[in-house]
Amino acid sequence: MAFSRSVVLDQLTILAPGLLGGSVAMAARSRGVARRIVIWSRRPETRLALRPQTWCDAVAETAEEAVRSASLVVLAAPVEKIIELARLIAPALPIGAIVTDVGSVKGELTRACHNAVPSGTFFIGSHPMAGGQKTGWENGNDTLFAGRVCFVTPLPAATATHHNATDIVVRFWRDLGSEVSTVTPDEHDEIVAHISHLPQAIATSLCTFLAQKNPAWRNFSGNGLRDTTRIAASDATMWIEIFQQNRGEVLRALSQFQDELQGLHAAIANRDWPEVRARLEHGKTYRDSFRP
Amino acid sequence: MAFSRSVVLDQLTILAPGLLGGSVAMAARSRGVARRIVIWSRRPETRLALRPQTWCDAVAETAEEAVRSASLVVLAAPVEKIIELARLIAPALPIGAIVTDVGSVKGELTRACHNAVPSGTFFIGSHPMAGGQKTGWENGNDTLFAGRVCFVTPLPAATATHHNATDIVVRFWRDLGSEVSTVTPDEHDEIVAHISHLPQAIATSLCTFLAQKNPAWRNFSGNGLRDTTRIAASDATMWIEIFQQNRGEVLRALSQFQDELQGLHAAIANRDWPEVRARLEHGKTYRDSFRP
Repeated sequence: MAFSRSVVLDQLTILAPGLLGGSVAMAARSRGVARRIVIWSRRPETRLALRPQTWCDAVAETAEEAVRSASLVVLAAPVEKIIELARLIAPALPIGAIVTDVGSVKGELTRACHNAVPSGTFFIGSHPMAGGQKTGWENGNDTLFAGRVCFVTPLPAATATHHNATDIVVRFWRDLGSEVSTVTPDEHDEIVAHISHLPQAIATSLCTFLAQKNPAWRNFSGNGLRDTTRIAASDATMWIEIFQQNRGEVLRALSQFQDELQGLHAAIANRDWPEVRARLEHGKTYRDSFRP
Repeated sequence: MAFSRSVVLDQLTILAPGLLGGSVAMAARSRGVARRIVIWSRRPETRLALRPQTWCDAVAETAEEAVRSASLVVLAAPVEKIIELARLIAPALPIGAIVTDVGSVKGELTRACHNAVPSGTFFIGSHPMAGGQKTGWENGNDTLFAGRVCFVTPLPAATATHHNATDIVVRFWRDLGSEVSTVTPDEHDEIVAHISHLPQAIATSLCTFLAQKNPAWRNFSGNGLRDTTRIAASDATMWIEIFQQNRGEVLRALSQFQDELQGLHAAIANRDWPEVRARLEHGKTYRDSFRP
Protein backbone atom coordinates (compact mmCIF):
# COMPACT_ATOMS: atom_id res chain seq x y z
CA MET A 1 0.00 0.00 0.00
CA ALA A 2 1.53 3.28 -1.07
CA PHE A 3 1.45 5.85 1.71
CA SER A 4 -0.18 8.50 -0.44
CA ARG A 5 -2.94 6.31 -1.93
CA SER A 6 -6.27 6.22 -0.18
CA VAL A 7 -8.06 2.92 0.32
CA VAL A 8 -11.82 2.94 0.81
CA LEU A 9 -12.68 1.35 4.14
CA ASP A 10 -15.19 -1.49 4.09
CA GLN A 11 -16.79 -0.38 7.33
CA LEU A 12 -16.23 2.70 9.47
CA THR A 13 -17.77 2.47 12.95
CA ILE A 14 -18.21 5.53 15.16
CA LEU A 15 -19.04 5.03 18.82
CA ALA A 16 -20.63 7.72 21.02
CA PRO A 17 -20.67 10.49 18.39
CA GLY A 18 -20.70 14.08 19.60
CA LEU A 19 -19.63 17.11 17.57
CA LEU A 20 -16.38 15.42 16.47
CA GLY A 21 -17.76 11.89 15.93
CA GLY A 22 -20.76 13.18 14.00
CA SER A 23 -18.51 15.35 11.83
CA VAL A 24 -16.21 12.36 11.16
CA ALA A 25 -19.22 10.41 9.83
CA MET A 26 -20.48 13.36 7.75
CA ALA A 27 -17.03 14.05 6.26
CA ALA A 28 -16.42 10.33 5.59
CA ARG A 29 -19.78 10.11 3.81
CA SER A 30 -19.32 13.15 1.61
CA ARG A 31 -15.72 12.22 0.75
CA GLY A 32 -16.51 8.55 0.05
CA VAL A 33 -13.99 7.30 2.59
CA ALA A 34 -16.01 4.23 3.68
CA ARG A 35 -18.46 1.86 1.93
CA ARG A 36 -20.52 1.51 5.08
CA ILE A 37 -20.82 3.74 8.18
CA VAL A 38 -22.16 2.24 11.41
CA ILE A 39 -22.97 4.31 14.50
CA TRP A 40 -23.71 3.47 18.11
CA SER A 41 -24.73 5.72 20.94
CA ARG A 42 -25.37 4.73 24.57
CA ARG A 43 -28.79 6.38 24.92
CA PRO A 44 -31.75 4.74 23.16
CA GLU A 45 -33.32 8.13 22.28
CA THR A 46 -30.08 9.21 20.60
CA ARG A 47 -29.99 5.98 18.57
CA LEU A 48 -33.56 6.73 17.48
CA ALA A 49 -32.57 10.26 16.40
CA LEU A 50 -29.52 8.93 14.53
CA ARG A 51 -31.48 6.37 12.50
CA PRO A 52 -32.82 8.78 9.81
CA GLN A 53 -29.44 10.55 9.32
CA THR A 54 -28.17 10.11 5.78
CA TRP A 55 -24.52 10.06 6.87
CA CYS A 56 -24.84 6.64 8.50
CA ASP A 57 -26.02 3.34 7.07
CA ALA A 58 -26.89 1.59 10.31
CA VAL A 59 -27.38 2.36 13.99
CA ALA A 60 -26.31 -0.58 16.16
CA GLU A 61 -28.06 -1.49 19.41
CA THR A 62 -24.80 -2.31 21.21
CA ALA A 63 -21.19 -1.13 20.89
CA GLU A 64 -20.06 -4.76 20.40
CA GLU A 65 -22.49 -5.26 17.52
CA ALA A 66 -21.33 -1.96 15.96
CA VAL A 67 -17.68 -3.04 15.77
CA ARG A 68 -18.18 -6.69 14.75
CA SER A 69 -17.42 -6.08 11.03
CA ALA A 70 -15.48 -2.81 11.39
CA SER A 71 -12.30 -1.97 9.47
CA LEU A 72 -11.80 1.24 11.48
CA VAL A 73 -13.46 2.15 14.79
CA VAL A 74 -13.51 5.75 16.07
CA LEU A 75 -14.07 6.10 19.82
CA ALA A 76 -15.68 9.56 19.95
CA ALA A 77 -16.59 9.59 23.66
CA PRO A 78 -15.24 12.19 26.13
CA VAL A 79 -11.64 11.53 27.18
CA GLU A 80 -12.42 9.89 30.53
CA LYS A 81 -14.81 7.34 28.90
CA ILE A 82 -12.52 6.22 26.06
CA ILE A 83 -10.52 3.56 27.92
CA GLU A 84 -13.67 1.92 29.27
CA LEU A 85 -15.19 1.92 25.77
CA ALA A 86 -12.03 0.31 24.34
CA ARG A 87 -12.27 -2.46 26.97
CA LEU A 88 -15.98 -2.96 26.22
CA ILE A 89 -15.53 -3.52 22.49
CA ALA A 90 -12.21 -5.42 22.69
CA PRO A 91 -13.74 -8.95 22.66
CA ALA A 92 -15.93 -8.13 19.64
CA LEU A 93 -13.21 -6.65 17.38
CA PRO A 94 -12.47 -8.62 14.20
CA ILE A 95 -8.84 -9.53 13.41
CA GLY A 96 -7.12 -6.62 11.65
CA ALA A 97 -9.48 -3.98 13.01
CA ILE A 98 -7.94 -0.60 13.78
CA VAL A 99 -9.27 1.48 16.66
CA THR A 100 -8.66 5.21 17.04
CA ASP A 101 -10.19 8.05 19.08
CA VAL A 102 -10.56 11.84 19.11
CA GLY A 103 -9.40 12.55 22.68
CA SER A 104 -7.39 15.68 23.43
CA VAL A 105 -4.90 13.95 25.77
CA LYS A 106 -2.93 10.94 24.60
CA GLY A 107 -0.21 9.52 26.90
CA GLU A 108 -1.83 7.19 29.44
CA LEU A 109 -4.93 6.81 27.29
CA THR A 110 -2.95 5.42 24.35
CA ARG A 111 -1.07 2.93 26.55
CA ALA A 112 -4.28 1.76 28.25
CA CYS A 113 -6.18 1.39 24.98
CA HIS A 114 -3.21 -0.38 23.34
CA ASN A 115 -3.24 -2.87 26.22
CA ALA A 116 -7.04 -3.22 26.05
CA VAL A 117 -7.37 -4.33 22.42
CA PRO A 118 -6.51 -7.96 21.54
CA SER A 119 -3.48 -9.08 19.57
CA GLY A 120 -4.12 -8.82 15.81
CA THR A 121 -6.05 -5.56 16.28
CA PHE A 122 -4.54 -2.11 16.74
CA PHE A 123 -5.11 1.05 18.74
CA ILE A 124 -3.62 4.18 17.16
CA GLY A 125 -4.61 7.39 18.94
CA SER A 126 -5.79 10.52 17.12
CA HIS A 127 -6.47 14.10 18.18
CA PRO A 128 -8.10 16.29 15.54
CA MET A 129 -7.57 19.95 16.56
CA ALA A 130 -11.08 20.95 15.62
CA GLY A 131 -14.22 21.84 17.47
CA GLY A 132 -16.38 24.80 18.26
CA GLN A 133 -18.40 26.52 20.92
CA LYS A 134 -21.36 24.22 20.17
CA THR A 135 -21.38 20.53 21.07
CA GLY A 136 -23.38 17.50 19.86
CA TRP A 137 -23.53 15.70 16.51
CA GLU A 138 -26.49 17.91 15.54
CA ASN A 139 -23.93 20.74 15.17
CA GLY A 140 -21.45 18.64 13.19
CA ASN A 141 -20.51 19.30 9.58
CA ASP A 142 -18.52 17.59 6.87
CA THR A 143 -15.84 20.31 6.66
CA LEU A 144 -14.94 20.46 10.37
CA PHE A 145 -11.52 18.91 9.75
CA ALA A 146 -10.66 20.65 6.49
CA GLY A 147 -7.29 22.38 6.81
CA ARG A 148 -7.09 21.64 10.56
CA VAL A 149 -4.18 19.87 12.27
CA CYS A 150 -4.81 16.28 13.36
CA PHE A 151 -2.27 14.49 15.56
CA VAL A 152 -1.85 10.75 15.07
CA THR A 153 0.03 9.25 18.01
CA PRO A 154 1.42 5.73 17.52
CA LEU A 155 3.39 4.25 20.43
CA PRO A 156 7.16 4.56 19.85
CA ALA A 157 8.35 0.91 19.83
CA ALA A 158 5.82 -0.46 17.38
CA THR A 159 5.86 -3.42 14.98
CA ALA A 160 5.63 -3.33 11.19
CA THR A 161 1.91 -4.20 11.26
CA HIS A 162 1.46 -1.40 13.78
CA HIS A 163 3.16 0.92 11.25
CA ASN A 164 0.69 -0.18 8.58
CA ALA A 165 -2.20 0.54 10.92
CA THR A 166 -0.72 3.98 11.62
CA ASP A 167 -0.52 4.65 7.87
CA ILE A 168 -4.20 3.81 7.49
CA VAL A 169 -5.20 6.18 10.31
CA VAL A 170 -2.99 8.94 8.85
CA ARG A 171 -4.59 8.50 5.42
CA PHE A 172 -8.06 8.45 6.97
CA TRP A 173 -7.63 11.90 8.53
CA ARG A 174 -5.98 13.25 5.36
CA ASP A 175 -8.97 11.99 3.40
CA LEU A 176 -11.21 14.01 5.74
CA GLY A 177 -9.15 17.11 4.88
CA SER A 178 -6.82 17.32 7.90
CA GLU A 179 -3.12 18.15 7.97
CA VAL A 180 -1.73 15.17 9.87
CA SER A 181 1.26 15.27 12.24
CA THR A 182 2.59 11.99 13.63
CA VAL A 183 4.14 12.30 17.10
CA THR A 184 4.44 9.99 20.10
CA PRO A 185 1.62 10.17 22.69
CA ASP A 186 3.93 11.85 25.23
CA GLU A 187 5.23 14.39 22.70
CA HIS A 188 1.61 15.15 21.85
CA ASP A 189 0.76 15.85 25.48
CA GLU A 190 3.74 18.16 25.87
CA ILE A 191 2.87 20.07 22.68
CA VAL A 192 -0.82 20.59 23.50
CA ALA A 193 0.03 21.55 27.11
CA HIS A 194 1.95 24.47 25.60
CA ILE A 195 -0.11 25.54 22.60
CA SER A 196 -3.60 24.80 23.90
CA HIS A 197 -3.83 24.08 27.66
CA LEU A 198 -1.48 26.89 28.77
CA PRO A 199 -3.32 29.56 26.70
CA GLN A 200 -6.58 28.33 28.26
CA ALA A 201 -5.16 28.63 31.80
CA ILE A 202 -3.91 32.14 30.99
CA ALA A 203 -7.16 33.34 29.40
CA THR A 204 -9.20 31.95 32.31
CA SER A 205 -6.92 33.59 34.88
CA LEU A 206 -6.98 36.94 33.08
CA CYS A 207 -10.79 36.80 33.16
CA THR A 208 -11.10 35.77 36.82
CA PHE A 209 -8.61 38.51 37.72
CA LEU A 210 -10.43 41.27 35.81
CA ALA A 211 -13.83 40.08 37.08
CA GLN A 212 -12.56 40.59 40.65
CA LYS A 213 -10.91 43.95 39.99
CA ASN A 214 -13.80 45.69 38.25
CA PRO A 215 -16.07 43.82 35.82
CA ALA A 216 -17.33 47.10 34.32
CA TRP A 217 -13.90 47.73 32.77
CA ARG A 218 -14.69 45.12 30.11
CA ASN A 219 -16.87 47.78 28.46
CA PHE A 220 -13.72 49.78 27.69
CA SER A 221 -11.94 46.86 26.08
CA GLY A 222 -10.70 46.97 22.54
CA ASN A 223 -10.04 43.98 20.33
CA GLY A 224 -6.82 43.20 22.21
CA LEU A 225 -8.56 42.09 25.40
CA ARG A 226 -11.36 40.44 23.42
CA ASP A 227 -8.89 38.27 21.48
CA THR A 228 -6.68 37.49 24.46
CA THR A 229 -9.63 36.26 26.54
CA ARG A 230 -11.81 34.65 23.85
CA ILE A 231 -11.11 31.00 24.80
CA ALA A 232 -12.05 31.68 28.44
CA ALA A 233 -15.63 31.23 27.19
CA SER A 234 -14.97 27.51 26.47
CA ASP A 235 -16.85 24.72 28.23
CA ALA A 236 -15.65 24.32 31.85
CA THR A 237 -16.41 20.59 32.05
CA MET A 238 -14.30 19.79 29.00
CA TRP A 239 -11.39 21.77 30.45
CA ILE A 240 -11.57 20.18 33.91
CA GLU A 241 -11.11 16.82 32.18
CA ILE A 242 -8.18 18.04 30.12
CA PHE A 243 -6.41 19.58 33.15
CA GLN A 244 -6.99 16.32 35.05
CA GLN A 245 -5.75 14.11 32.22
CA ASN A 246 -2.72 16.22 31.32
CA ARG A 247 -1.99 17.57 34.80
CA GLY A 248 1.79 16.95 34.83
CA GLU A 249 2.50 18.60 31.48
CA VAL A 250 0.12 21.49 32.20
CA LEU A 251 1.85 22.22 35.53
CA ARG A 252 5.30 22.11 33.90
CA ALA A 253 4.23 24.50 31.11
CA LEU A 254 2.51 26.82 33.59
CA SER A 255 5.58 27.01 35.88
CA GLN A 256 7.88 27.84 33.00
CA PHE A 257 5.48 30.46 31.66
CA GLN A 258 5.26 31.99 35.15
CA ASP A 259 9.06 32.32 35.13
CA GLU A 260 8.91 33.97 31.71
CA LEU A 261 6.29 36.47 32.86
CA GLN A 262 8.33 37.20 35.98
CA GLY A 263 11.30 37.91 33.69
CA LEU A 264 9.31 40.65 31.92
CA HIS A 265 8.06 41.94 35.28
CA ALA A 266 11.63 42.19 36.58
CA ALA A 267 12.84 43.96 33.42
CA ILE A 268 10.09 46.62 33.73
CA ALA A 269 10.68 46.92 37.51
CA ASN A 270 14.44 47.39 36.93
CA ARG A 271 13.83 49.85 34.09
CA ASP A 272 15.90 47.50 31.92
CA TRP A 273 14.36 48.91 28.73
CA PRO A 274 16.77 47.14 26.34
CA GLU A 275 15.60 43.84 27.88
CA VAL A 276 11.93 44.87 27.63
CA ARG A 277 12.47 45.85 24.01
CA ALA A 278 14.21 42.54 23.26
CA ARG A 279 11.23 40.65 24.68
CA LEU A 280 8.66 42.73 22.76
CA GLU A 281 10.62 42.28 19.52
CA HIS A 282 11.25 38.58 20.10
CA GLY A 283 7.53 38.03 20.78
CA LYS A 284 6.59 40.01 17.67
CA THR A 285 8.99 38.02 15.47
CA TYR A 286 7.51 34.78 16.75
CA ARG A 287 3.90 35.92 16.27
CA ASP A 288 4.60 37.41 12.83
CA SER A 289 5.84 33.98 11.71
CA PHE A 290 2.43 32.32 12.26
CA ARG A 291 0.71 31.20 9.11
CA PRO A 292 -1.88 33.80 8.09
CA MET B 1 -24.68 74.98 26.04
CA ALA B 2 -26.69 71.78 26.38
CA PHE B 3 -24.44 68.77 26.89
CA SER B 4 -26.03 66.81 24.06
CA ARG B 5 -25.93 69.58 21.41
CA SER B 6 -22.94 69.77 19.11
CA VAL B 7 -21.34 73.09 18.35
CA VAL B 8 -19.33 73.46 15.17
CA LEU B 9 -15.76 74.49 16.03
CA ASP B 10 -14.40 77.58 14.31
CA GLN B 11 -10.95 76.08 13.95
CA LEU B 12 -9.63 72.61 14.69
CA THR B 13 -5.83 72.37 14.75
CA ILE B 14 -4.04 69.03 14.64
CA LEU B 15 -0.33 68.93 15.45
CA ALA B 16 1.99 66.10 14.38
CA PRO B 17 -0.68 63.91 12.76
CA GLY B 18 0.00 60.17 12.54
CA LEU B 19 -2.65 57.48 12.11
CA LEU B 20 -4.80 58.93 14.91
CA GLY B 21 -4.29 62.64 14.13
CA GLY B 22 -4.93 62.12 10.43
CA SER B 23 -8.07 60.14 11.18
CA VAL B 24 -9.28 62.89 13.54
CA ALA B 25 -8.98 65.41 10.69
CA MET B 26 -10.66 63.09 8.18
CA ALA B 27 -13.54 62.27 10.54
CA ALA B 28 -13.95 65.94 11.54
CA ARG B 29 -14.11 66.89 7.87
CA SER B 30 -16.65 64.30 6.82
CA ARG B 31 -18.84 64.92 9.88
CA GLY B 32 -18.69 68.73 9.60
CA VAL B 33 -17.30 69.17 13.11
CA ALA B 34 -15.11 72.21 12.30
CA ARG B 35 -15.36 75.13 9.89
CA ARG B 36 -11.61 75.12 9.34
CA ILE B 37 -8.98 72.41 9.88
CA VAL B 38 -5.33 73.43 10.24
CA ILE B 39 -2.45 70.93 10.34
CA TRP B 40 1.20 71.16 11.28
CA SER B 41 3.91 68.55 11.05
CA ARG B 42 7.54 68.90 12.12
CA ARG B 43 9.10 67.63 8.88
CA PRO B 44 8.97 69.96 5.82
CA GLU B 45 8.47 67.04 3.43
CA THR B 46 5.44 65.89 5.45
CA ARG B 47 3.98 69.41 5.34
CA LEU B 48 4.41 69.31 1.56
CA ALA B 49 2.60 65.97 1.34
CA LEU B 50 -0.21 67.25 3.59
CA ARG B 51 -0.91 70.36 1.51
CA PRO B 52 -3.03 68.69 -1.22
CA GLN B 53 -5.11 66.66 1.28
CA THR B 54 -8.80 67.59 1.09
CA TRP B 55 -9.35 66.95 4.81
CA CYS B 56 -7.33 70.02 5.83
CA ASP B 57 -7.73 73.66 4.85
CA ALA B 58 -4.23 74.88 5.69
CA VAL B 59 -0.82 73.48 6.56
CA ALA B 60 1.03 75.79 8.95
CA GLU B 61 4.81 76.28 8.83
CA THR B 62 5.15 76.32 12.64
CA ALA B 63 3.17 74.83 15.53
CA GLU B 64 2.69 78.29 17.04
CA GLU B 65 1.19 79.63 13.80
CA ALA B 66 -1.09 76.59 13.60
CA VAL B 67 -2.68 77.22 17.01
CA ARG B 68 -2.96 81.03 16.85
CA SER B 69 -6.70 81.03 15.96
CA ALA B 70 -7.57 77.55 17.21
CA SER B 71 -10.74 76.68 19.15
CA LEU B 72 -9.53 73.11 19.75
CA VAL B 73 -5.97 71.80 19.41
CA VAL B 74 -5.23 68.06 19.17
CA LEU B 75 -1.67 67.08 20.11
CA ALA B 76 -1.29 63.89 18.06
CA ALA B 77 2.42 63.28 18.70
CA PRO B 78 3.76 60.12 20.40
CA VAL B 79 3.26 60.08 24.18
CA GLU B 80 6.77 61.17 25.13
CA LYS B 81 6.64 64.24 22.82
CA ILE B 82 3.26 65.59 23.94
CA ILE B 83 4.41 67.59 26.99
CA GLU B 84 7.15 69.33 25.02
CA LEU B 85 4.64 70.17 22.27
CA ALA B 86 2.21 71.63 24.84
CA ARG B 87 5.02 73.85 26.20
CA LEU B 88 5.97 74.92 22.66
CA ILE B 89 2.49 76.13 21.71
CA ALA B 90 1.50 77.55 25.13
CA PRO B 91 2.55 81.18 24.43
CA ALA B 92 0.66 81.23 21.11
CA LEU B 93 -2.70 79.86 22.36
CA PRO B 94 -5.64 82.32 22.15
CA ILE B 95 -7.77 82.85 25.26
CA GLY B 96 -10.44 80.14 25.55
CA ALA B 97 -8.53 77.61 23.44
CA ILE B 98 -8.88 73.98 24.48
CA VAL B 99 -5.98 71.57 24.04
CA THR B 100 -6.34 67.79 24.02
CA ASP B 101 -4.20 64.85 22.93
CA VAL B 102 -4.49 61.20 21.88
CA GLY B 103 -1.85 59.67 24.19
CA SER B 104 -2.41 56.23 25.70
CA VAL B 105 -1.15 57.17 29.21
CA LYS B 106 -2.68 60.10 31.06
CA GLY B 107 -1.59 60.70 34.70
CA GLU B 108 1.66 62.68 34.70
CA LEU B 109 1.07 63.86 31.15
CA THR B 110 -2.24 65.52 32.01
CA ARG B 111 -0.76 67.28 35.05
CA ALA B 112 2.28 68.50 33.07
CA CYS B 113 0.18 69.72 30.14
CA HIS B 114 -2.34 71.37 32.49
CA ASN B 115 0.56 73.26 34.08
CA ALA B 116 2.07 74.10 30.67
CA VAL B 117 -0.92 75.92 29.15
CA PRO B 118 -1.64 79.52 30.28
CA SER B 119 -4.56 80.61 32.43
CA GLY B 120 -7.68 81.14 30.31
CA THR B 121 -6.85 78.11 28.13
CA PHE B 122 -7.49 74.47 29.01
CA PHE B 123 -5.83 71.11 28.69
CA ILE B 124 -8.25 68.15 28.80
CA GLY B 125 -6.61 64.81 27.98
CA SER B 126 -8.13 62.25 25.61
CA HIS B 127 -7.33 58.66 24.74
CA PRO B 128 -9.26 57.22 21.82
CA MET B 129 -9.00 53.40 22.00
CA ALA B 130 -8.48 53.03 18.27
CA GLY B 131 -5.58 52.20 16.02
CA GLY B 132 -4.33 49.47 13.81
CA GLN B 133 -1.30 47.50 12.70
CA LYS B 134 -0.44 50.27 10.22
CA THR B 135 0.81 53.70 11.26
CA GLY B 136 0.95 57.14 9.59
CA TRP B 137 -1.79 59.53 8.47
CA GLU B 138 -1.67 57.93 5.01
CA ASN B 139 -3.42 54.93 6.60
CA GLY B 140 -6.01 57.05 8.43
CA ASN B 141 -9.71 56.96 7.71
CA ASP B 142 -12.80 58.87 8.77
CA THR B 143 -14.44 55.93 10.56
CA LEU B 144 -11.51 54.99 12.81
CA PHE B 145 -13.32 56.20 15.95
CA ALA B 146 -16.82 55.00 15.08
CA GLY B 147 -18.16 52.85 17.90
CA ARG B 148 -14.81 52.84 19.73
CA VAL B 149 -14.30 53.87 23.33
CA CYS B 150 -12.60 57.23 23.90
CA PHE B 151 -11.49 58.25 27.39
CA VAL B 152 -11.66 61.94 28.28
CA THR B 153 -9.65 62.61 31.43
CA PRO B 154 -10.27 65.97 33.17
CA LEU B 155 -8.30 66.60 36.37
CA PRO B 156 -10.45 65.97 39.48
CA ALA B 157 -10.51 69.36 41.24
CA ALA B 158 -11.48 71.49 38.25
CA THR B 159 -13.29 74.81 37.89
CA ALA B 160 -16.61 75.47 36.16
CA THR B 161 -14.89 76.75 33.02
CA HIS B 162 -12.77 73.60 33.07
CA HIS B 163 -16.04 71.60 33.15
CA ASN B 164 -17.27 73.49 30.09
CA ALA B 165 -14.03 72.71 28.30
CA THR B 166 -14.45 69.04 29.23
CA ASP B 167 -17.97 69.05 27.80
CA ILE B 168 -16.65 70.41 24.51
CA VAL B 169 -13.98 67.71 24.28
CA VAL B 170 -16.56 65.01 25.15
CA ARG B 171 -18.91 66.28 22.44
CA PHE B 172 -16.04 66.47 19.95
CA TRP B 173 -15.24 62.75 20.30
CA ARG B 174 -18.92 61.83 20.26
CA ASP B 175 -19.28 63.81 17.03
CA LEU B 176 -16.46 61.68 15.58
CA GLY B 177 -18.49 58.56 16.48
CA SER B 178 -16.78 57.50 19.73
CA GLU B 179 -18.40 56.22 22.91
CA VAL B 180 -16.91 58.58 25.47
CA SER B 181 -16.07 57.68 29.09
CA THR B 182 -14.98 60.44 31.45
CA VAL B 183 -12.55 59.29 34.17
CA THR B 184 -9.73 60.94 36.08
CA PRO B 185 -6.23 60.63 34.56
CA ASP B 186 -5.13 58.23 37.33
CA GLU B 187 -8.26 56.07 37.00
CA HIS B 188 -7.57 55.95 33.27
CA ASP B 189 -4.03 54.69 33.81
CA GLU B 190 -5.24 51.99 36.21
CA ILE B 191 -7.95 50.84 33.78
CA VAL B 192 -5.72 50.64 30.71
CA ALA B 193 -2.96 48.91 32.73
CA HIS B 194 -5.48 46.11 33.30
CA ILE B 195 -7.43 45.89 30.05
CA SER B 196 -4.68 46.80 27.58
CA HIS B 197 -1.13 46.80 29.00
CA LEU B 198 -1.47 43.57 31.02
CA PRO B 199 -2.88 41.59 28.04
CA GLN B 200 0.06 42.89 25.97
CA ALA B 201 2.60 41.75 28.60
CA ILE B 202 0.91 38.33 28.73
CA ALA B 203 0.72 37.85 24.95
CA THR B 204 4.36 38.92 24.55
CA SER B 205 5.51 36.54 27.31
CA LEU B 206 3.52 33.63 25.90
CA CYS B 207 5.22 34.21 22.54
CA THR B 208 8.75 34.57 23.92
CA PHE B 209 8.17 31.41 26.00
CA LEU B 210 6.89 29.32 23.08
CA ALA B 211 9.61 30.65 20.77
CA GLN B 212 12.22 29.31 23.23
CA LYS B 213 10.52 25.96 23.82
CA ASN B 214 9.98 24.97 20.19
CA PRO B 215 9.00 27.51 17.56
CA ALA B 216 7.80 24.74 15.20
CA TRP B 217 4.88 24.00 17.53
CA ARG B 218 3.15 27.13 16.26
CA ASN B 219 2.26 25.13 13.15
CA PHE B 220 -0.01 22.94 15.27
CA SER B 221 -1.86 25.88 16.78
CA GLY B 222 -5.58 26.28 16.45
CA ASN B 223 -7.48 29.53 16.74
CA GLY B 224 -7.07 29.54 20.54
CA LEU B 225 -3.33 30.25 20.45
CA ARG B 226 -3.72 32.58 17.46
CA ASP B 227 -6.26 34.74 19.31
CA THR B 228 -4.42 34.67 22.63
CA THR B 229 -1.15 35.84 21.04
CA ARG B 230 -2.45 38.19 18.32
CA ILE B 231 -1.46 41.47 20.03
CA ALA B 232 2.12 40.24 20.50
CA ALA B 233 2.58 41.36 16.87
CA SER B 234 2.11 45.03 17.89
CA ASP B 235 4.83 47.65 17.43
CA ALA B 236 7.63 47.21 20.01
CA THR B 237 8.58 50.91 20.13
CA MET B 238 5.03 52.00 20.96
CA TRP B 239 4.86 49.45 23.78
CA ILE B 240 8.22 50.38 25.30
CA GLU B 241 6.89 53.92 25.67
CA ILE B 242 3.64 52.76 27.24
CA PHE B 243 5.44 50.49 29.72
CA GLN B 244 7.78 53.36 30.59
CA GLN B 245 4.98 55.91 31.00
CA ASN B 246 2.62 53.65 32.96
CA ARG B 247 5.27 51.57 34.74
CA GLY B 248 3.78 51.72 38.26
CA GLU B 249 0.26 50.65 37.25
CA VAL B 250 1.59 48.00 34.86
CA LEU B 251 3.74 46.45 37.60
CA ARG B 252 0.83 46.45 40.06
CA ALA B 253 -1.51 44.78 37.54
CA LEU B 254 1.18 42.25 36.54
CA SER B 255 1.90 41.27 40.17
CA GLN B 256 -1.76 40.73 40.93
CA PHE B 257 -2.26 38.70 37.74
CA GLN B 258 0.79 36.59 38.65
CA ASP B 259 -0.90 35.81 42.00
CA GLU B 260 -4.11 34.86 40.20
CA LEU B 261 -2.26 32.53 37.82
CA GLN B 262 -0.42 30.97 40.76
CA GLY B 263 -3.83 30.36 42.36
CA LEU B 264 -4.89 28.26 39.35
CA HIS B 265 -1.50 26.54 39.33
CA ALA B 266 -1.90 25.61 43.01
CA ALA B 267 -5.45 24.33 42.50
CA ILE B 268 -4.33 22.03 39.66
CA ALA B 269 -1.23 20.94 41.62
CA ASN B 270 -3.41 20.13 44.69
CA ARG B 271 -6.00 18.34 42.53
CA ASP B 272 -8.54 20.78 43.97
CA TRP B 273 -10.91 20.23 41.03
CA PRO B 274 -13.86 22.09 42.58
CA GLU B 275 -11.59 25.15 42.78
CA VAL B 276 -10.37 24.64 39.19
CA ARG B 277 -13.98 24.30 38.03
CA ALA B 278 -14.99 27.45 39.93
CA ARG B 279 -12.21 29.39 38.18
CA LEU B 280 -13.11 28.04 34.72
CA GLU B 281 -16.78 28.84 35.27
CA HIS B 282 -16.08 32.27 36.76
CA GLY B 283 -13.82 33.13 33.80
CA LYS B 284 -16.45 31.90 31.34
CA THR B 285 -19.21 33.95 33.01
CA TYR B 286 -17.05 37.07 32.78
CA ARG B 287 -16.09 36.47 29.15
CA ASP B 288 -19.65 35.59 28.11
CA SER B 289 -20.75 39.00 29.44
CA PHE B 290 -18.60 40.92 26.92
CA ARG B 291 -20.56 42.81 24.32
CA PRO B 292 -20.67 40.76 21.09
